[in-house]
Amino acid sequence: MDRSKTIKHTRFYGFGTKWREKSVPVFRIPLLEFQQQDMSGMKTYFMRIALRAGNLTQRLRNLDSFFPPFPYSERNVLSTASGNSVQFAPAKKTVGIREIEAPNSLVLQFGLDHPLALDAGVSLSPLTIAYQTYGELNAAKSNAVLVCHALTGDQHVANTHPITGKPGWWNTMVGPGRPIDTNRYFVIASNVVGGCMGTTGPASLNPATGRPYGLDLPVVTIKDMVRAQAMLIDYLGIDTLFCVAGGSMGGMQVLQWVASFPERVFAAMPIATAARHSAQNIAFHEVGRQAVMADPDWRGGRYLKEGVVPTKGLAVARMAAHITYLSENVLQSKFGRKLQNRAAPTFSFDADFQIENYLRHQATSFVDRFDANSYLYVTRACDYFDLAADYGGTLAYAFKGAKSRFCVVSFNSDWLYPTSASRAIVHALNAGGASVSFVDIETDRGHDAFLLDTPEFIATSRGFLAAAARARGLAPTKNEPK
Amino acid sequence: MDRSKTIKHTRFYGFGTKWREKSVPVFRIPLLEFQQQDMSGMKTYFMRIALRAGNLTQRLRNLDSFFPPFPYSERNVLSTASGNSVQFAPAKKTVGIREIEAPNSLVLQFGLDHPLALDAGVSLSPLTIAYQTYGELNAAKSNAVLVCHALTGDQHVANTHPITGKPGWWNTMVGPGRPIDTNRYFVIASNVVGGCMGTTGPASLNPATGRPYGLDLPVVTIKDMVRAQAMLIDYLGIDTLFCVAGGSMGGMQVLQWVASFPERVFAAMPIATAARHSAQNIAFHEVGRQAVMADPDWRGGRYLKEGVVPTKGLAVARMAAHITYLSENVLQSKFGRKLQNRAAPTFSFDADFQIENYLRHQATSFVDRFDANSYLYVTRACDYFDLAADYGGTLAYAFKGAKSRFCVVSFNSDWLYPTSASRAIVHALNAGGASVSFVDIETDRGHDAFLLDTPEFIATSRGFLAAAARARGLAPTKNEPK
Repeated sequence: MDRSKTIKHTRFYGFGTKWREKSVPVFRIPLLEFQQQDMSGMKTYFMRIALRAGNLTQRLRNLDSFFPPFPYSERNVLSTASGNSVQFAPAKKTVGIREIEAPNSLVLQFGLDHPLALDAGVSLSPLTIAYQTYGELNAAKSNAVLVCHALTGDQHVANTHPITGKPGWWNTMVGPGRPIDTNRYFVIASNVVGGCMGTTGPASLNPATGRPYGLDLPVVTIKDMVRAQAMLIDYLGIDTLFCVAGGSMGGMQVLQWVASFPERVFAAMPIATAARHSAQNIAFHEVGRQAVMADPDWRGGRYLKEGVVPTKGLAVARMAAHITYLSENVLQSKFGRKLQNRAAPTFSFDADFQIENYLRHQATSFVDRFDANSYLYVTRACDYFDLAADYGGTLAYAFKGAKSRFCVVSFNSDWLYPTSASRAIVHALNAGGASVSFVDIETDRGHDAFLLDTPEFIATSRGFLAAAARARGLAPTKNEPK
Repeated sequence: MDRSKTIKHTRFYGFGTKWREKSVPVFRIPLLEFQQQDMSGMKTYFMRIALRAGNLTQRLRNLDSFFPPFPYSERNVLSTASGNSVQFAPAKKTVGIREIEAPNSLVLQFGLDHPLALDAGVSLSPLTIAYQTYGELNAAKSNAVLVCHALTGDQHVANTHPITGKPGWWNTMVGPGRPIDTNRYFVIASNVVGGCMGTTGPASLNPATGRPYGLDLPVVTIKDMVRAQAMLIDYLGIDTLFCVAGGSMGGMQVLQWVASFPERVFAAMPIATAARHSAQNIAFHEVGRQAVMADPDWRGGRYLKEGVVPTKGLAVARMAAHITYLSENVLQSKFGRKLQNRAAPTFSFDADFQIENYLRHQATSFVDRFDANSYLYVTRACDYFDLAADYGGTLAYAFKGAKSRFCVVSFNSDWLYPTSASRAIVHALNAGGASVSFVDIETDRGHDAFLLDTPEFIATSRGFLAAAARARGLAPTKNEPK
């Protein structure tokens, strides 16, 4: 019997409702015979087993080699069927897996002949870049705007998100008539390397093993993300981007673009960002990573292989991070000490307070749309970001050849990447004689202000881009400020 | 065979090296016979079992009733001995258990006739209060200073800590010649209700079950902590405390003392504190609690019973909290982006940065000295704290009858309980015509400044207490400012 043909996308992890591999040594049952059936639309698999003396752990290890490359489905044991057969049901797929199997974006694939050279000193290949575009590229290819997403953002800037069903994360800024006007500009947004929305990340298949990378994916940097974006821009035949814009980790990519490709960026908008991660920034990210890694379902990063997902750890990571995205004032005015659907405290550990309920809700919805290992990679990329370090420690040198015009935006209640961090960028740009506008916007919305419909921010962006478009000779649209 | 006599402090949790109760149903082996031996100094227990058809889970539940009250030791299965016997080894005791079994402090026990009435609407009884004293109570009993500890502090204010071996947490403030001069004052410090250093908390035995309370301990409040302290002060025969002093959660207790017992506090020092927990304060605490609860070893709070400890979750909670104790500036100046014993980043998830290593170290040492359930209780007590709420929402009314003289201290870089929170207290005190000194100390040390040798803080405290002592007619000590 040829097992590798009989059993497809199915692996044996246990026996019976509650069993997992770790409890199996108890049994010492070798697998004797497999049979697979596809029943009435629902994929159901039966695995016939017979009990016999022997060491199943050892057998399972050996069996690995019989099975096809990592199965993305049909992995959870549903129930013990009658007799000695076991019923499998389709496993819940993580977002990272689903976006690789069935992308919700355009996908650009680079083969082994186009590796991505990483800062870690190794190459990443093959490389997939998942991206979205909006608007039309003009004949001169001079109207392209690259939007760089933040830590847990993605390429779905201005369309309904395929996972959450919510509007694009920057639909306040990108769209017809918006500051990044899709009637005028060709807007490109790609998922970062290390992400989980279709671009190569820890859920992608490692060609060396045929299984997901997990932590075998090399650690990537902001510069690596930008290098990958440049490969996409090259593929699109665009020489100079009209603008590179982004907030938070997206802003770091903007800064890196200008430093790495000074001739290719006409205008740059680094928003609510920093040229390096501070100790406090690193500290919060480290808490998040430790929360993920403390979850026993993380399994040293091999959770996809083992059919589990470290949702609890990732949820805690998100809760801690989410606090840093909001100002103390907005938390106080929005939630204060208001109770959640109750008149008095319950004297329990329930979510008595609205703020508790809000954080739990944020965390729950997050784990459905983000991959735990990706969270490790993107946080690490930020922590490693120190633009000046590549230039002898002097940030101004990073912008030495910059021809771009800059609009640096900060928000005065942002304590994650505070105004002082933007001011340091502006000082370095000034030192190099760059053309810089700097706007520190007064708002109590904290770091998240760049994602919200913050009027001064929208107006600032609109004015900067319209002026830059005129300088670039791009045709005006209606309603453009003269 | 009388099992309850044969088996002492031993319970059956599994069979073999890796087994735990949850994997046992597989076996369906009933326990037939037990035998216990104490061998050569090391406590080792053997449990003879025999395999037979049946449902062990059910049997184990029934067996619970055969066993003596909760065993604090001999719970971990070490190995499967030859034949059908199982070897147990002494389990690691948590700090909460050790301090109950063998207190490192004075211990005051209140029986069933002296219950503590809790805000939750129930009584706590019996009640144990573990405390330390320093100095001598004078004949008039007018020189007593009550020191209230912060969230994870304890009664070991000015002596070597019995668990960590480190100096007392306020030895900068308390001791001979210190502002709270033990040559002059009788200093009292007790562990709060809900704590884990000997005072009744979630690791204490629930008289209703003979097992640790776990989450069956009612949720306690700052006011409950103060009520328990008042029982101790009553027992010591002290009518009016010369001073009540404390920082952070200790400061909340100071405020509550003045509100609950306005006639019994001559001088009050609420330091780096707030009259209520803000939404951001609650949010950070909720992250910590969720981190603990996400640890599968937390077991719904029953981890002591099940022989495990949720150290990973508690460590994550501590890491997140620790960031809030330090200012961004002090993190940056102390750690910045310095690497930990390496010349270049490792491109991994190791603790490359010193700040990561520091946080991990803080977390590791914390879990050895603190109990996870206690962490839930003390954070909840802070979250519930809203002094004005008991007085119609107007804080000034809480201090209406206050005869005390106040010294309110804040630190300008404290973002956990910022200067504005202290200012709100001062405004309320002013509204009631109280005698108030308010000092906002300029330092980059953040919230932890009150625990450190911060010169302006020490000088402020020394001056305030010396003046209060003169007003109280207490004999001066040498070196006292005239």
